[in-house]
Amino acid sequence: MSELRREPITRMWVVVTTDHPKDPSDYLPFKPPYQPQTLDGPCPFCPGNEWMTPGETFSLGREEGAWSVRVVPNKFPFFHIEGGFDRKPEGMYDMMEGVGAHEILVESPRHDDNLAVMDPQQIGKMMRALKERLIDLEKDRRFQQFLIIKNYPGLFNRHPHSHIMAMPVIPRRIDEEIWGTLEYYQRKERCIFCDILKQEISLKKRIILETLHFLVFSPFASRYPFETWIIPKFHSSDFHHITEEEIGDLSLALHSLSHRFSRLLSDPPYSMVFHTSPVQGRFHRSEYHWHIETRLRIGLREGFEWGTGLFVNPTPPEDAARYLREIDIE
Amino acid sequence: MSELRREPITRMWVVVTTDHPKDPSDYLPFKPPYQPQTLDGPCPFCPGNEWMTPGETFSLGREEGAWSVRVVPNKFPFFHIEGGFDRKPEGMYDMMEGVGAHEILVESPRHDDNLAVMDPQQIGKMMRALKERLIDLEKDRRFQQFLIIKNYPGLFNRHPHSHIMAMPVIPRRIDEEIWGTLEYYQRKERCIFCDILKQEISLKKRIILETLHFLVFSPFASRYPFETWIIPKFHSSDFHHITEEEIGDLSLALHSLSHRFSRLLSDPPYSMVFHTSPVQGRFHRSEYHWHIETRLRIGLREGFEWGTGLFVNPTPPEDAARYLREIDIE
Repeated sequence: MSELRREPITRMWVVVTTDHPKDPSDYLPFKPPYQPQTLDGPCPFCPGNEWMTPGETFSLGREEGAWSVRVVPNKFPFFHIEGGFDRKPEGMYDMMEGVGAHEILVESPRHDDNLAVMDPQQIGKMMRALKERLIDLEKDRRFQQFLIIKNYPGLFNRHPHSHIMAMPVIPRRIDEEIWGTLEYYQRKERCIFCDILKQEISLKKRIILETLHFLVFSPFASRYPFETWIIPKFHSSDFHHITEEEIGDLSLALHSLSHRFSRLLSDPPYSMVFHTSPVQGRFHRSEYHWHIETRLRIGLREGFEWGTGLFVNPTPPEDAARYLREIDIE
Repeated sequence: MSELRREPITRMWVVVTTDHPKDPSDYLPFKPPYQPQTLDGPCPFCPGNEWMTPGETFSLGREEGAWSVRVVPNKFPFFHIEGGFDRKPEGMYDMMEGVGAHEILVESPRHDDNLAVMDPQQIGKMMRALKERLIDLEKDRRFQQFLIIKNYPGLFNRHPHSHIMAMPVIPRRIDEEIWGTLEYYQRKERCIFCDILKQEISLKKRIILETLHFLVFSPFASRYPFETWIIPKFHSSDFHHITEEEIGDLSLALHSLSHRFSRLLSDPPYSMVFHTSPVQGRFHRSEYHWHIETRLRIGLREGFEWGTGLFVNPTPPEDAARYLREIDIE
């Protein structure tokens, strides 16, 4: 099991593992830079090894004999589905059990597949799987927030996959965006994301590509070199309300962006996070505007961001957008 | 030069380098994990090579022929001392020139020195140098915030050193702590850090060590394995108001903690950040409580923290404190 503990000063929630906690020997022998543990043995996400994962919660194509995408509960979840949702005090501190859902989307049957070389149709199937899982998880009235996170390449298992999480609290970064969005809305009666879209489309210099329904751009205050956002050009607070037509369009945008990353920076590692409104009546915010944020895991400045929240980005977003825009897509 | 750009949704300031920006070739050839550039050639921080650095702003022992600590302007600063402090719009966005100070404390004449093996007297000299520089920089009325950051080992140059920065804006993490502190003060008329101290001292389980004036402990909602805070047991908002007696005591605490890290985890890399109140009349907060936060750079979960602000810590702070407390200091 795990616990959710609230940092009392800034009121940020932190997940602390309590059942099989790591002791010092788990971090040794330590040779910098730290290398996370990697998969040893057969891949549980490859076809033929389905028995190695818990039973799937969603799949496409299984009835026809060969699945194209699968969703399974994570064997090493941050959150567990059983447990109480009460908040408890420890003196002046607040905590609760780490209850929630943590599933894995297996994005392709192919162990070495990746978005940059995948057929956009396959990316469409991934998006459909994510949408269907969120619609199903939304029925559990205990969850406040969904998170979808993809690391490329996978840190433990390189077979392409994403994490789907449903949490009983709203994590810090989403919470900050919600407050910023609401404050702007109160002042202007407009969506701040919609205003950013209009400004970027008129300025052009930070745009990487534009499709019928989505804008892919380098944000003005990019925290990381080549930070990229993918945002629907229409106002929508919830990723899982996406239509079939929009899924087709988003798949093209994701494919094109990954391909550009790969060509420009020689297949760099990246992380991709879906930001979508909290769910349930009293937490849902129709003023919010869902989007995807992408960061390349290159050139990190250890120490500065962590300690202070001060990000130093040595590649201006106008330059980053130009380099990515000018990549030839054959 | 650099620019300070404000992220419009969460209103976080980001430093963007604009004069010698990095282009894609600066990140190539890319082989994960990313290795930052390291020093090539003679060390500018070693005795005899003083000509390689800009003129020093502070030193101890130079008159007697051999310096023990030196402070010099950073040759590769995030901020420059020249420039205007006006905030400018770019459409709906805010920005300003990246003006500020960025100096380096050379902590010892010895290239391979480190806190775990240093004489506490030498650590005392480091603290005195930091204090004197902040007192001097405070005279420049344009600066709102000081940051002191140490990475061990140094990422570019392994000669032990710290960064001293003076900034015209308050970075995100300090800002969040200030707001949390003020809100708690309004409700309780007490300092939240002083309350945390009292609770930790009475509970004991998260304490690593206690000196006359400082408490060294694992915070309740530790974001990282072995995250450790060093906090004065008396209320004080500003590090640079520390007395000579307190410097002696803090030096013992820093030496003991580094020694414990080194023994427990085989000389792990760490980052250390001083959190101190913003300066100048209207930004200074006497309700704030300065402290030092330390993180080991081990076992990082790329992707999760970044994308969401959700930290997952696999080593509970009660365990971390016990392991560190039980290290024998001969």
